[in-house]
Amino acid sequence: VSDSWATSGVDLHLETTGPGVRVGLETALRDAIRDRRLVPGLRVPSSRALAADLGIARNTVADAYAQLIAEGWLAARQGSGTRVAHQPVALTRARVLPAASPLPYDLRAGSPDISRFPRSGWLSAARRAVNDAPSEAFGYGDPHGRLELRQALTGYLARARGVRVTPDRVIICSGFTHGLSLLCRVLRSRGATALAMEAYGTADHRAVAVGCGLRVDTLPIDDHGAVIGRLGDQAGVVLTPAHQFPLGMALAPQRRTSAIEWAADTGGIVIEDDYDGEFRYDRQPVGAMQSLAPELVVFSGTASKSLAPGLRLGWLVLPGHLVDDVTAAKALDDYTPALDQLTLAEFITSGRYDRHIRRSRLSYRRRRDRLVAALQGQAPQIHVTGIAAGLHALLELPPGYREEDIIECAAQRGLALEGLRVSGCTSVYTDSRTEERPDALVIGYGTPPGHAYNAAIALLTAVLMECAPA
Amino acid sequence: VSDSWATSGVDLHLETTGPGVRVGLETALRDAIRDRRLVPGLRVPSSRALAADLGIARNTVADAYAQLIAEGWLAARQGSGTRVAHQPVALTRARVLPAASPLPYDLRAGSPDISRFPRSGWLSAARRAVNDAPSEAFGYGDPHGRLELRQALTGYLARARGVRVTPDRVIICSGFTHGLSLLCRVLRSRGATALAMEAYGTADHRAVAVGCGLRVDTLPIDDHGAVIGRLGDQAGVVLTPAHQFPLGMALAPQRRTSAIEWAADTGGIVIEDDYDGEFRYDRQPVGAMQSLAPELVVFSGTASKSLAPGLRLGWLVLPGHLVDDVTAAKALDDYTPALDQLTLAEFITSGRYDRHIRRSRLSYRRRRDRLVAALQGQAPQIHVTGIAAGLHALLELPPGYREEDIIECAAQRGLALEGLRVSGCTSVYTDSRTEERPDALVIGYGTPPGHAYNAAIALLTAVLMECAPA
Repeated sequence: VSDSWATSGVDLHLETTGPGVRVGLETALRDAIRDRRLVPGLRVPSSRALAADLGIARNTVADAYAQLIAEGWLAARQGSGTRVAHQPVALTRARVLPAASPLPYDLRAGSPDISRFPRSGWLSAARRAVNDAPSEAFGYGDPHGRLELRQALTGYLARARGVRVTPDRVIICSGFTHGLSLLCRVLRSRGATALAMEAYGTADHRAVAVGCGLRVDTLPIDDHGAVIGRLGDQAGVVLTPAHQFPLGMALAPQRRTSAIEWAADTGGIVIEDDYDGEFRYDRQPVGAMQSLAPELVVFSGTASKSLAPGLRLGWLVLPGHLVDDVTAAKALDDYTPALDQLTLAEFITSGRYDRHIRRSRLSYRRRRDRLVAALQGQAPQIHVTGIAAGLHALLELPPGYREEDIIECAAQRGLALEGLRVSGCTSVYTDSRTEERPDALVIGYGTPPGHAYNAAIALLTAVLMECAPA
Repeated sequence: VSDSWATSGVDLHLETTGPGVRVGLETALRDAIRDRRLVPGLRVPSSRALAADLGIARNTVADAYAQLIAEGWLAARQGSGTRVAHQPVALTRARVLPAASPLPYDLRAGSPDISRFPRSGWLSAARRAVNDAPSEAFGYGDPHGRLELRQALTGYLARARGVRVTPDRVIICSGFTHGLSLLCRVLRSRGATALAMEAYGTADHRAVAVGCGLRVDTLPIDDHGAVIGRLGDQAGVVLTPAHQFPLGMALAPQRRTSAIEWAADTGGIVIEDDYDGEFRYDRQPVGAMQSLAPELVVFSGTASKSLAPGLRLGWLVLPGHLVDDVTAAKALDDYTPALDQLTLAEFITSGRYDRHIRRSRLSYRRRRDRLVAALQGQAPQIHVTGIAAGLHALLELPPGYREEDIIECAAQRGLALEGLRVSGCTSVYTDSRTEERPDALVIGYGTPPGHAYNAAIALLTAVLMECAPA
């Protein structure tokens, strides 16, 4: 077994006797790739080496590899052996948001520092919520979500994000992906055929829209953010105006206005994914785009970045004409437990949510500063782009560097990374008419727990120096 | 405004000035029907009376009524005025499981006694779960669900329901409807076109299957339960073998065997909805059908009847060939919060779950006995059918009684009821080749809180006597 495989620490849990060995091997490999125990770009052992290692026939391994190559899980490249493929959306069957990495250090984007979760504050809020809850909270819920939480969010979103909102416009959901799924179903039922999304966006979001029967058109990104002028007759557009994911710019004011004009002219809707709008480090956060035109913009936020993805709590603030239909769509998948909603309501109204966000903002700001300083000091050839905001930064790689190589090199040293093209969260959706962007790393500096952050950054700078192209 | 309307206590929250009065009235009426503040069968006031009452033009009311009749929300019947329609599935836009009733007493089926929710025990389990949770529990989860809960359920389901299960076959979901939705998507992606469901089944379940693009074929019910011989080339069948909902019999042993044979012969799957399998009062519960053929039967259970629907926690035990596909389907709608899963795991392994079920079983058994005794004493013309199990009983009405009349009569006295044909949970899906069943009430004796139970039963017997046909 080759070094790259051995160091990845993969245990395939494989039965190596009986008639099902080949199928078992295929399944074990698919599972390991899907769970990201085998990361894209990783070289797999030769069929001869793996067969010897597992004590099974070489043909069995070769057949399994051939099958997985045909299915797109593995890719054979001349001269460099067989590697774990970079999966396109169509193949992305399981969650592409980052699962826990098997590697000791993780700088992939998409997660806040979950070790900061305010356990005792949350428990206090839960105690109060459970004790104070009216009995009906334990029954089948109102698909709008608990009024207590919609009221608490109304105050918070108006104050912190400038959202123009009343509780009757708020629908509680389980996260942005869930909210998007509800919206896609409603748009589809109204006859929509296409939705626009930003280039390099999250693969999950595309999968949801496609799964609802919508075509996804890609909006190129330039220095001012999404190129709104490319919008056409789509039924809606998903934007990350506060902090584009993953390129990191804020949507320029003129573009915001253009998007609203497009919506007013065409009857389309703007879906504002405010995924990390609370975290701006260089100035006051730019207010939500929704406040420009509450009847044309859906505002969407979650507790996934501000508290933890594991809470599965999110919210939509809807234009009036969408409230009934989105509520109806939600009625059949009303998955948000009432006690969690009441706990978050209590967490917000008690002031704990604001305090937690202030502390988190300070912590992430320091992390970003440390990242920038470390790179300036030790890898000055790397350019950090994007505004001082959010939980991730884009590191543009100089000519000659390849994302795949850096990612594999980092994995061998125990650091999980992802790139702009090659990653768990993003995929290539460039418009062929736009220029290709340089290879880049998407660094989630919020991801590691506090005690591991300095070591992760040290590893990153070491990788960037040591794995530079020859 | 007529008595029937006035006594229903409906407040339409209507703005009665400005250009949007008619649209506002339509929306208010739709909302009230959808929320079941206006129950099916209720007579609405004449347009003249309502216009006078609201101080708006009669034509406005008449136009709104005409629109709602065209949309199917209202139904005009010669000689008996306009009434709230009995909504077919296609129109059932919002959750049809019972929302909290505006009436003081509620004997509709579908909910356990949520006032029995073990708040302090749940909080203790939550405290332990939150404190002991590994950090990764706060991240994006594994779509299988938390291993801790899958392990706890494995022990419980084997012990209490005879399920043949290992943790790798368990997928955590948000309830039966969610599990069914996952299964429907997988079956559809494998080319399925139809699913069979029992006659009189829950409208939500049909809506989910239809929403996935599946045709739903109806299986008639006779004294032995679902008529398995009517199954054809459907990809699966949803059964309630422990306690048919709503008719109340257990599926006969021969029928169980036939269903397994059908699955083995056709490659179909049996989806066992064990919605109240823990509650049998006259004998040991009949073990899960899944144990007969774990590779042909999906076992599905939830905490909705055993603890509370508001928890949104359920589980599927899957045949091996479905695990990967169902997990993949779940990956994009992974809505089950990790802390809730860990809390339930702790609640089970600490022994609290078994204790709560034992206590609940005793309480519901007493309630059923009291219902039966009250009817024997005061309404002996009413026949209680079905086995001594679960949370509901079927009350067959003698010739001449009409469900609609009893339901409206009860509503006027402050008691929410539903019938076999006319209800929130069920709809008419009889096979035209089978005989029509007599009108019947589906009594959810688990629904009222303990302090209101005797009064609810007293009201029920009073209604059955006083509202008898002339």
